[in-house]
Amino acid sequence: MFGDVLEDELQSEYGLTVGHWPQSIALSTVGGWLACRGAGQLSNRYGKIEDIVIGLDVVLADGTIVHTGGHARQSAGPDLTQLFVGSEGTLGIITGARLRARSVATANHSSAWAFPSFEAGADACRSIIQRGLAPAALRLYDAAEADRNWGTGDIAVLLAFDEGDQATVDATTTITAEECSSAAPLDAELVTKWFGHRNDVSALEALISRGYMVDTLELTVSWTDLPVLYTTVRDAIAATPGIISSTAHLSHSYSDGACLYFTFAGKAAAEGPDAIEEMYMSAWNAGTTTALTHGGSLSHHHGVGLNRARFMSASQGEGATSVLHAMKKALDPNGILNPGKLGMPTAFGDLPDRFGSEH
Amino acid sequence: MFGDVLEDELQSEYGLTVGHWPQSIALSTVGGWLACRGAGQLSNRYGKIEDIVIGLDVVLADGTIVHTGGHARQSAGPDLTQLFVGSEGTLGIITGARLRARSVATANHSSAWAFPSFEAGADACRSIIQRGLAPAALRLYDAAEADRNWGTGDIAVLLAFDEGDQATVDATTTITAEECSSAAPLDAELVTKWFGHRNDVSALEALISRGYMVDTLELTVSWTDLPVLYTTVRDAIAATPGIISSTAHLSHSYSDGACLYFTFAGKAAAEGPDAIEEMYMSAWNAGTTTALTHGGSLSHHHGVGLNRARFMSASQGEGATSVLHAMKKALDPNGILNPGKLGMPTAFGDLPDRFGSEH
Repeated sequence: MFGDVLEDELQSEYGLTVGHWPQSIALSTVGGWLACRGAGQLSNRYGKIEDIVIGLDVVLADGTIVHTGGHARQSAGPDLTQLFVGSEGTLGIITGARLRARSVATANHSSAWAFPSFEAGADACRSIIQRGLAPAALRLYDAAEADRNWGTGDIAVLLAFDEGDQATVDATTTITAEECSSAAPLDAELVTKWFGHRNDVSALEALISRGYMVDTLELTVSWTDLPVLYTTVRDAIAATPGIISSTAHLSHSYSDGACLYFTFAGKAAAEGPDAIEEMYMSAWNAGTTTALTHGGSLSHHHGVGLNRARFMSASQGEGATSVLHAMKKALDPNGILNPGKLGMPTAFGDLPDRFGSEH
Repeated sequence: MFGDVLEDELQSEYGLTVGHWPQSIALSTVGGWLACRGAGQLSNRYGKIEDIVIGLDVVLADGTIVHTGGHARQSAGPDLTQLFVGSEGTLGIITGARLRARSVATANHSSAWAFPSFEAGADACRSIIQRGLAPAALRLYDAAEADRNWGTGDIAVLLAFDEGDQATVDATTTITAEECSSAAPLDAELVTKWFGHRNDVSALEALISRGYMVDTLELTVSWTDLPVLYTTVRDAIAATPGIISSTAHLSHSYSDGACLYFTFAGKAAAEGPDAIEEMYMSAWNAGTTTALTHGGSLSHHHGVGLNRARFMSASQGEGATSVLHAMKKALDPNGILNPGKLGMPTAFGDLPDRFGSEH
């Protein structure tokens, strides 16, 4: 079921929301959210999809039907729901899901803040979330990205938006203002502007249709490693021949780290798809290799897919890789489910070189 | 590492807390919390252990060393950390863990409330938690249990305690008071009394030394099924020959359900361990069978162990059972890790009849 259809029905018929708002809401399905471990734009409040799901129906490769979870919480063995979330179709086919819904929010609050640097803004995000409660959205844009979106000049811009119960919104508003006391307040209208255009990728599509390459790369990193990782990954992508823009925002905060979300664009020197592809793969190689070197994860919510599969075992380490492969062999001994995904061996021949080669 | 040692060190040296406060804090270890998917008394705030852990070191049956997790969040395949949490030693040996810590609380608030019935109190817990933020502890005692503990007579007693950041505590205090507006406020000193004696089981030990049997049974249930399950499980245990007390409290609330925690005691008609054991197993059979019939889970935070193993496949269903057994076979083909646990087949002979027989 597509996300916007789900939300329309839940909200209009029951006054409820799942609260999962990926940029792709109208193009993505519940099954896709689960298979790739998705995050919504308000998932500081509602959780990532792994926090929202309470049970799954799964069909295994041999036709066995499996029902997982279904209770609020239980301690009866491993959480088999989480074995299938993020499995990208490799361990079983998700055919049904039970998601946690909440009442539609009755209150909200927006604010926007100017920081002299991305690092100073990130430190405010850390301080806010480590107080134990944060706004539903807490999005910090570096100066280049903020200026491109809203013409704000040479400042990092933090957008804070909360929704929910009035008492909770009051608490996050207080916490945010206290932790941003050294920043300059900006017009909260910026949050409204963000909401108005947050899912509009037509500007990117216009670029792509004129031969430009545009993509995003997201990952998590500890607060300690964040400043170095932000700079080195941004610069590594920017140094790739043909790249003309490399910027980032911080999209999600956790007590132990954050998601950095890089956007990059370029135009290959030569014409044609091969040149664009070479530039594209070079940028991904540079960004991902640099990220893994500086303590970043492989992905925060876009999953692995084919493009990141070649980094999977370097990112996980040998031991975890052997466990994942053992799970695959146990549940899908003939390897018929989504072969080649998650960097696992496939019985159906090698992947194309560009995906299969080790970095 | 024992829980109290961990907390002493974290708090005194770093001003941090993991926030995991099981009744067994001084008797239980970090490894035990993880192996059995434990909950602390303040886990509405800090999370159950599966929410607190961010990575594990595990040794598999063949000696392979596995490191899982380690990033704030990532979407790179299934969450292998959660494969080992709750596995009760059957899939690998947990040798290390990375836990999320927080600053020691700087504010707190206590309140206590009298409800005319357990069901009315449970409805208040549901209303509070469904507003998206709840006190760290929200414990509702039925009249019998409250009166036994504090001499409060014929009322259900709700104890609410929050700690953390002042703004957050203010929010939960507001929400709690609003949702308890139909209840009579009680002296918040009851919360202090609970804190003073919450880990003191000497009264139970005194009963046991005089030949009484005392135990607890906890499980989760949806808010919809909670009223019927509370009554039927309590009464089913009470109807077991020899049982003289069967009471309950609600220990943890989630948006979709709660943990009910039954305490029961009895004295067998005949002398000797066999008679006590027969009464004990009869009470467990009656309580658990009734719970599973009325939509309850097998356990909330005490795990499965040997005593609940015989209910594991009925509770999980055939499909999930086949997945768990496949995981076991893949990671421990010779079945050398904690044989017989989680109701799985063992190569080392049958369990004693009392544990092995299907209910």
